[in-house]
Amino acid sequence: MLTNEKLTKDLLKVLPKNQVLTGIEERYAYSQDALNVKNIETLADAVVFVENVEQIQAVVKIANRYNTPVICRGAGTNVVGACIPKKNGIILNFSRMNKILEINPSNLTARVQAGVVVGDLQREVEKYGLYYPPDPSNLTVSTIGGSIAQASAGAKAFKYGSTKEYVLDLLVVTANGEILKTGSSTIKNATGYNLNALFVGSEGTLGIVAEATLKLIPKPETKVVLMSYFDSVENSIHAVTSIIEHGITPATIDFMDKNAIQTVEDFIHAGLLTDKECALVIEVDGLACAVDYQRTMIEKILNNFGAAAIQYSKTQEDYERIWRARRSSMAACVRLKPNITTDDLIVPRNNLSQLVLGVREICAKYGLTVCMVGHVGDGSVHPQIPIDYTDEEEYARFKKAKSEIYKLTAELGGLISGEHGIGMLKREAIGLVINETALEYMRKIKKTLDPNNILNPYKIF
Amino acid sequence: MLTNEKLTKDLLKVLPKNQVLTGIEERYAYSQDALNVKNIETLADAVVFVENVEQIQAVVKIANRYNTPVICRGAGTNVVGACIPKKNGIILNFSRMNKILEINPSNLTARVQAGVVVGDLQREVEKYGLYYPPDPSNLTVSTIGGSIAQASAGAKAFKYGSTKEYVLDLLVVTANGEILKTGSSTIKNATGYNLNALFVGSEGTLGIVAEATLKLIPKPETKVVLMSYFDSVENSIHAVTSIIEHGITPATIDFMDKNAIQTVEDFIHAGLLTDKECALVIEVDGLACAVDYQRTMIEKILNNFGAAAIQYSKTQEDYERIWRARRSSMAACVRLKPNITTDDLIVPRNNLSQLVLGVREICAKYGLTVCMVGHVGDGSVHPQIPIDYTDEEEYARFKKAKSEIYKLTAELGGLISGEHGIGMLKREAIGLVINETALEYMRKIKKTLDPNNILNPYKIF
Repeated sequence: MLTNEKLTKDLLKVLPKNQVLTGIEERYAYSQDALNVKNIETLADAVVFVENVEQIQAVVKIANRYNTPVICRGAGTNVVGACIPKKNGIILNFSRMNKILEINPSNLTARVQAGVVVGDLQREVEKYGLYYPPDPSNLTVSTIGGSIAQASAGAKAFKYGSTKEYVLDLLVVTANGEILKTGSSTIKNATGYNLNALFVGSEGTLGIVAEATLKLIPKPETKVVLMSYFDSVENSIHAVTSIIEHGITPATIDFMDKNAIQTVEDFIHAGLLTDKECALVIEVDGLACAVDYQRTMIEKILNNFGAAAIQYSKTQEDYERIWRARRSSMAACVRLKPNITTDDLIVPRNNLSQLVLGVREICAKYGLTVCMVGHVGDGSVHPQIPIDYTDEEEYARFKKAKSEIYKLTAELGGLISGEHGIGMLKREAIGLVINETALEYMRKIKKTLDPNNILNPYKIF
Repeated sequence: MLTNEKLTKDLLKVLPKNQVLTGIEERYAYSQDALNVKNIETLADAVVFVENVEQIQAVVKIANRYNTPVICRGAGTNVVGACIPKKNGIILNFSRMNKILEINPSNLTARVQAGVVVGDLQREVEKYGLYYPPDPSNLTVSTIGGSIAQASAGAKAFKYGSTKEYVLDLLVVTANGEILKTGSSTIKNATGYNLNALFVGSEGTLGIVAEATLKLIPKPETKVVLMSYFDSVENSIHAVTSIIEHGITPATIDFMDKNAIQTVEDFIHAGLLTDKECALVIEVDGLACAVDYQRTMIEKILNNFGAAAIQYSKTQEDYERIWRARRSSMAACVRLKPNITTDDLIVPRNNLSQLVLGVREICAKYGLTVCMVGHVGDGSVHPQIPIDYTDEEEYARFKKAKSEIYKLTAELGGLISGEHGIGMLKREAIGLVINETALEYMRKIKKTLDPNNILNPYKIF
């Protein structure tokens, strides 16, 4: 019997048949995620749909027996190959562990299984007048487990922070199948090392997150979104800086460049101004009186920096229309070429103009189209480059451009991921932005927590 | 030559004479911190006043040569013995590394040396219209390095979170004297493991924090503090829950019980109502219109729960008077007995009444006075028990009471520290609230990052 067959047999001893996929098409399908790169050759040994913590422990024990990797998978929406097996491994699919276990309005916490969809949690807690702010743009499908693994953020991080600010406690299955509780349901914790934070963003390489206790906040009373256009990128960034320096804290300060505006307009015909250099999308939320006051201040500042066509949402329809335009960028870009790539750069805010203009210059130099969107309030941009992987010559230019973009990001004191993670995609580039001692310590921690390198190997570093 | 003499000689080779204290009285003085326990017998080998990172590295190398512990010390204000050498060691005093290296208003960051006093940083950033929220009650003397080591919070954590939410990057000297950079000056970070968070709250046991880059926020436009009294602890906590459930987010929701009120009143004669069971101190900050609105809402809710004598600050004098009352509790308690002990319990908010009443009951059972103050919005209380260490019989009762208090905290799903840390004081109790696998992982991480156990040994676990 082949190792793979033995493994499958052992899995079927601890899991019902309808929780284990062994067909080659199924194993192939679950070996991919939303990373779009050339030539990934990989095939999982098996795909298991776990339903409880005990089953996760049982699978981990089998994985250890065969020295086979375990790769956790939420909705597979990550764009860095974080849930692609490098060669082989067991895919631990969390889609059936999707229960909200508790919503506690007086404690302002929720306890959930890792497979709960982010948007589902948001909708449920809002029924109690509560709010879970992290909102990755794929939130209607992406899971809490995935957003913990990748330290996801979203459009509201400027005011509310990212996933790591909301994790109070995790129930983790360790590399040898033990149960690790990383925190507590308390709002503060100065009792021992911060294991919570160590697991958030560790991309399934240190332990398997099965459940999470998350911090909630009261739902803001009201919100408004503004959209405005600029004739220069610098002016738009100056306006952002001025808003911040005026002590205003919008929930969102997002950005779309000319190419992103044009591509979205061609796609959804929303009446965007395609002759402008860029646009800002700014959301303010909170108490009605504070929202009104801040909106007025923001309009004044935008005007001071030469903004054109400032609009704000007066109805829910307006609100959704503006957000649809901002959020359609990736979907729109897909139409430009057979393949779409995205990235996730972040720099200290005061270096943002240099990053945006630098990325455009590098792409122009290599004859590549780039649509830039981003959370400029955070210093964060997502350059989306449509390419055709069958065009070898273009692919070579793309690789060169990427390398220069990462170098520029490093020179500007930035990082190659603010909210997507590193996964398989950027492993080789991480040394550009993280010092060697830090990498060495990360490797040591990995070795300590996962001595047999069972958990999602070949990721991050 | 004795080891201690050789060590001193080596220290004087790398540091100027005025940076090394070797006299026995000096070594004794710097071997104590604000922990007040019975019978600490300890004596540092030497006290060094480091002035830069290179000097820290040089000292760590010498410490390794002699296998002598290195114990970092900011202002020595911590109350858990986190900077007391267990037996011997080199005290690394940060009082001369007190420079604010940069305040960056457009990036909303500050870069500081570890010895900067928290209150000094707050005052300096406020000149730029910025705000550094963590405000441990000893902030006029305590240092950023100390507040990072102990994961300090303070009165504003309900709205703004604790120190760990504000650390973006640390410059750390490792156990073997290397330089480790844990993050970047960016607001988000999904590039590798969250080493920042691992060091915050690690009490100097994993590395020596020399510099920190901290996140700032815009300074709130205005603020108001309310004080009100209740005839029952339960009613006051119900009022807190109701405020939270109404979606109001005060900066502070603090609490004083009857004994704390009486003790403070005897001390500062502030006109507090000493016939009441407890008081709430609630601060609201933000835009003026929002502060007014929330204050009115809070007054209504307090009235609904039977609050008496609701006052709010109409002037800066009012504001300071109310806060002086709240903050004098520890100083006032000192007058009751020769020794004062404090603690730092935290439970999920919905278990807070049970904790407060339970602690009072346990103290009554053992004939101990307890003054309870706390950040009830966070579920956090500081029971202050005045005792006389020369009274053996009382001390025995005190130890029994503490043991029962920790057990109760554990039963209520809480932790034995929310913002002070564990230090030497609570090492033996940590197993009550942290599961064995988590402790084992903490020990493994310690062993990995500090294999020779040089860095502040005998702390936390």
